[in-house]
Amino acid sequence: MSYFLGIDIGGTNVDFGVVNSSGEILFESTLQTSDFTTAEELAATINMAVKSNFKDKLSAIGIGAPSVNRETEEIEYAPNLNWGEIIPIKTIFEEQFELPVSVENDANAYAKGIQVFGEGKDLNNFAVVTLGTGVGLGSVINSAVVSGNNGLAGELGHMVVHREGRECNCGNLGCLEAYVGAEGIVTTAKEKLEFSSGGSALNAIQPSDLSPLEIFNAARKDDPVSLEVVDSVCHDLGFALSGLINLMDIENIFLTGGITHAGNILRRKTEKHLKNFVLPNLRNKVNLRITSLNQTGGGILGAVAIIKDFTPAAVS
Amino acid sequence: MSYFLGIDIGGTNVDFGVVNSSGEILFESTLQTSDFTTAEELAATINMAVKSNFKDKLSAIGIGAPSVNRETEEIEYAPNLNWGEIIPIKTIFEEQFELPVSVENDANAYAKGIQVFGEGKDLNNFAVVTLGTGVGLGSVINSAVVSGNNGLAGELGHMVVHREGRECNCGNLGCLEAYVGAEGIVTTAKEKLEFSSGGSALNAIQPSDLSPLEIFNAARKDDPVSLEVVDSVCHDLGFALSGLINLMDIENIFLTGGITHAGNILRRKTEKHLKNFVLPNLRNKVNLRITSLNQTGGGILGAVAIIKDFTPAAVS
Repeated sequence: MSYFLGIDIGGTNVDFGVVNSSGEILFESTLQTSDFTTAEELAATINMAVKSNFKDKLSAIGIGAPSVNRETEEIEYAPNLNWGEIIPIKTIFEEQFELPVSVENDANAYAKGIQVFGEGKDLNNFAVVTLGTGVGLGSVINSAVVSGNNGLAGELGHMVVHREGRECNCGNLGCLEAYVGAEGIVTTAKEKLEFSSGGSALNAIQPSDLSPLEIFNAARKDDPVSLEVVDSVCHDLGFALSGLINLMDIENIFLTGGITHAGNILRRKTEKHLKNFVLPNLRNKVNLRITSLNQTGGGILGAVAIIKDFTPAAVS
Repeated sequence: MSYFLGIDIGGTNVDFGVVNSSGEILFESTLQTSDFTTAEELAATINMAVKSNFKDKLSAIGIGAPSVNRETEEIEYAPNLNWGEIIPIKTIFEEQFELPVSVENDANAYAKGIQVFGEGKDLNNFAVVTLGTGVGLGSVINSAVVSGNNGLAGELGHMVVHREGRECNCGNLGCLEAYVGAEGIVTTAKEKLEFSSGGSALNAIQPSDLSPLEIFNAARKDDPVSLEVVDSVCHDLGFALSGLINLMDIENIFLTGGITHAGNILRRKTEKHLKNFVLPNLRNKVNLRITSLNQTGGGILGAVAIIKDFTPAAVS
């Protein structure tokens, strides 16, 4: 039996796991991205973690990461990673493991994971929105992952949702990520707290400890300030997603990432706003869902799904 | 030699022509859409026009039209056509001509025309924006035309460019079409004329005679009000197109339609605004052009290109 190592590199966490060709995760773990000053250190640490049990059984490695140049399989100018402007991630892992390594944009990898292991098996068109430090999108259109001319498709996080709005890490103004990325959500909460009369559950949290998931959880308990923040996040996300739907008529859109763990509130409110922005004919053709891979190491499965020549076993 | 009849049905004009398999247009003509109270009348008139020279030589008919339901090949609820809510356009032309008829969304047909007869021959990814009464988009991604789950892909005209903006024919607020469709451009000009001090070349034109092309032509001659209108149109169009580029990383975008005949001003100004809205990494990966099919019956060629089993002759 072949085993594969899947690694999902994000701005906050690195998830990795060993997967068999049926998509079963035999081992998984999480590291904090900021604990590593170089990608070499990360590779060495992951090798240590899997070596004892799986070293001789692994046949290939797949990596999902932000800002991947598809031609070179290097990470280029990723605003949320501090390991250098150009990170030759493929070479670094090949040298560390002496195994073939495939690298793909994280959201595209996630989409491939949904296609191979998840709800996307029978869908010609779908998209996945990854909500974390950044905001990403992986699209499958006419049954193929969309990479675009430069491998840069899926920059949902940099759709402008407020002309002349907040400055984004990319340098533009009013990008979705500046409002719906983790930092953006916290910024909105701090802004609203400043103008609130003090009656918010969020006041009990140190401002430096505020996190998007806490804000969403407080909103579920009807905290008024948190509800305003969540509504604003869902309004902006719905606005951006309406563009995707109007342009590409993709019915099934999956959500994944930290804030999707706060129950149904994100999905429900985003869908409400989204429907006000899409062409009326398309209003009842929208199916926004939390992906089931969300609960099962979707980033790891996506990273495995993009391994070149990976063939999934028939899954029951 | 086989001949094909291509028909491009728009809100203002119906262009039709007879084309051989090399893409040469042997005959073409234009009718005014508003001269016909039913699609049956239109079919009969076109039949009269081509019968004497081509009746026995035609082997199939292709039609590009707005709001086509891809399953039924009927036109459904087209806001800019007054021939009934559901127009069984395929059946109407089949009965009139006793020939096989293929029907496709007009912008998708145009994209197929560029792929078969124009600049799209060697491009894996491109899009065409049709600027007329409405604003449409045809996209080719991974070498295939994008239709979406319901054949409704390409609703660029209904991307919201101003939240809480002008009411659109579709019922939503702030759609691109309400600003960049023919009526929207004229509305903007009237609004700006009302607040201008009177020194505009547009004041010499009866308000009821104002047209987008005249406004663009006046802008080319530096008429200040017209320049403001054109800048506003290009700003909104650039904003909407930046969404397409950020999401799909499509480098080559072609423009076609009435206002593209006013020289380079539309292309140049739209590209300028567009580049301010796209992710900085993509700024130099944008190639906005007027399609060469613009001058040569592109709508007719597109309609022919979507005919089922149509195979273009090797074109030199």
